[in-house]
Amino acid sequence: MTRTANKRDGELRTGRVTVRRRPQRGFYDHETVAAILDATFLCHVGIVVDGQPYVIPTSFGRDGRRLYIHGSAASRTLRHLSRALPICVTVTLLDGLVLARSAFNHSMNYRSVVVLGEASLVEGEEKLRALEIMSEHIIPGRWAQVRAPTEAEMRATSVLKIDIAEASAKIRSGPPLDDEEDLGWPCWAGELPFTVERQPPIPDPKLPAGVAAPDYVTAAGHRPRPDSAR
Amino acid sequence: MTRTANKRDGELRTGRVTVRRRPQRGFYDHETVAAILDATFLCHVGIVVDGQPYVIPTSFGRDGRRLYIHGSAASRTLRHLSRALPICVTVTLLDGLVLARSAFNHSMNYRSVVVLGEASLVEGEEKLRALEIMSEHIIPGRWAQVRAPTEAEMRATSVLKIDIAEASAKIRSGPPLDDEEDLGWPCWAGELPFTVERQPPIPDPKLPAGVAAPDYVTAAGHRPRPDSAR
Ligand SMILES: Cc1cc2nc3c(=O)[nH]c(=O)nc-3n(C[C@H](O)[C@H](O)[C@H](O)COP(=O)(O)OP(=O)(O)OC[C@H]3O[C@@H](n4cnc5c(N)ncnc54)[C@H](O)[C@@H]3O)c2cc1C
Ligand SMILES: Cc1cc2nc3c(=O)[nH]c(=O)nc-3n(C[C@H](O)[C@H](O)[C@H](O)COP(=O)(O)OP(=O)(O)OC[C@H]3O[C@@H](n4cnc5c(N)ncnc54)[C@H](O)[C@@H]3O)c2cc1C
Ligand code: HEM
Ligand code: HEM
Repeated sequence: MTRTANKRDGELRTGRVTVRRRPQRGFYDHETVAAILDATFLCHVGIVVDGQPYVIPTSFGRDGRRLYIHGSAASRTLRHLSRALPICVTVTLLDGLVLARSAFNHSMNYRSVVVLGEASLVEGEEKLRALEIMSEHIIPGRWAQVRAPTEAEMRATSVLKIDIAEASAKIRSGPPLDDEEDLGWPCWAGELPFTVERQPPIPDPKLPAGVAAPDYVTAAGHRPRPDSAR
Repeated sequence: MTRTANKRDGELRTGRVTVRRRPQRGFYDHETVAAILDATFLCHVGIVVDGQPYVIPTSFGRDGRRLYIHGSAASRTLRHLSRALPICVTVTLLDGLVLARSAFNHSMNYRSVVVLGEASLVEGEEKLRALEIMSEHIIPGRWAQVRAPTEAEMRATSVLKIDIAEASAKIRSGPPLDDEEDLGWPCWAGELPFTVERQPPIPDPKLPAGVAAPDYVTAAGHRPRPDSAR
């Protein structure tokens, strides 16, 4: 079996997560999924309350085959999630617009991941460790410098874990795919790439003069990485 | 009533879409919601199939109080959506990281919208018009230049509408909000803004030499607008 066939028939695949449209864009191996998850820290979590779906944006961190999300112990979404009900976590990186000659063949370049599973509460020692992992996933280098959480702050916080066991990735890249007979159509065609870029840091007005921004704020190493959208 | 109070108690508000945590960040007026929707063209649609939530990324367009999404007439998501079942459409703009002195008070600056409703199929004359609106929402100026859809292409396509009648916006901006007693903590604090930037267009290798990229590809006018993440 080739490497590509492995990824297309990977260990995270089930019937429910099989990409039906454009199936050649679907991947089901942990490596492909993890690389997309690591290029950002924003996900959209889907839950169902009284038959109504809700999609809530939230940050996340990854540790191996586990995702961590966090928030208020009083949040409806987090309280709901901690009841081991089915959820969906989706991550999307928009890499660009694909401009074809025909309206119909317009598309986008992207990398996205859909994870199905259940969330459960993280307690004990794993809880602080999970917050550190999440913080370092979002902004590596920060955790060592900040004022650590107090017990009261930890009590006010819920941390949830979701294991990555059933998931799909979908990826499109490259030029437009126009029909042969449209290739002579007199308009420009191609890709319009987007990237996420950091702007210069804005110091808190309450910061004493002379406190320099650390490397992890000024350097290009954090997520979303400027190179992540290519 | 002040303008702010109007927005916080706007016409799109119901109990289900009321922001509970950090309620001062919630807005429920059409103007605030529309401005966020118009700063991007990527949404996350939540549906429920057999009790399992699915969150699927897709593009959208807006016409007044109506959202349009489109895709294959054969897609599970679109077929499901056209059955007038409850859905959720969420749009998120990540404006930056907020670095506080305490781990606990870290945050993000963002603008997001959650729309609850039902999708229904668009047919007849509204269908082509909806695709044009969506295309012009995504890349203004493009529609007039491309090869228009054929009847077969229109048959292969489903277009859905969702009316914006029940929705919330949530917005955070500004510096970190540290506790008074942490202000002397010896680390940098502030905002790390992100923007979405266009990179130079990549012509389709099949494009004949000498076809120049049009203004709407080279100019800064399209969405996500470079200024949309500020
Ligand atoms: C930035 C972006 C913009 C898009 N815009 C559009 C659009 O305008 N119109 C359109 O029709 N489609 C769009 N898509 C593709 C869309 O996300 C679906 O893949 C598509 O609608 C086909 O779904 P389906 O019917 O094959 O999958 P479904 O039958 O709906 O889903 C089956 C399973 O496939 C997997 N899957 C489906 N989509 C994805 C995905 N994107 N990433 C990872 N796993 C996935 C999931 O596990 C899902 O449970 C866009 C995707 C991205 C990332
Ligand atoms: C980029 C980004 C990152 C975030 N990261 C985190 C995080 O790491 N941890 C965390 O706890 N929260 C995070 N949030 C906030 C999160 O989206 C919720 O607002 C939050 O979890 C509180 O939810 P709640 O319990 O008040 O609302 P819920 O009770 O869960 O929701 C009630 C209603 O409030 C409205 N609502 C809730 N959130 C939003 C929203 N973001 N935009 C528009 N309407 C909304 C909806 O209509 C929803 O139906 C993030 C938001 C954004 C945009
Ligand atoms: C700016 C204009 C448009 C953009 C940016 C756009 C974008 C997209 C994207 C990103 C997809 C998903 C492809 C994938 O799954 O990888 C898609 C699917 C689709 N689009 Fe569009 N589209 C545009 C216009 C149109 C128009 C005008 C039509 C019809 C006339 C159309 C018909 C379809 C159909 C049928 C699919 C489903 C393809 C499939 O799943 O097999 N699109 N579009
Ligand atoms: C890099 C680190 C972190 C980032 C980027 C971050 C980001 C966020 C964001 C964006 C929110 C949503 C705020 C809103 O609704 O507007 C949030 C909420 C919350 N965070 Fe964090 N966070 C981080 C670390 C932590 C840590 C370490 C803790 C606990 C010790 C924590 C506890 C909480 C709690 C309790 C909430 C809910 C607040 C409320 O709804 O009232 N966070 N976080």
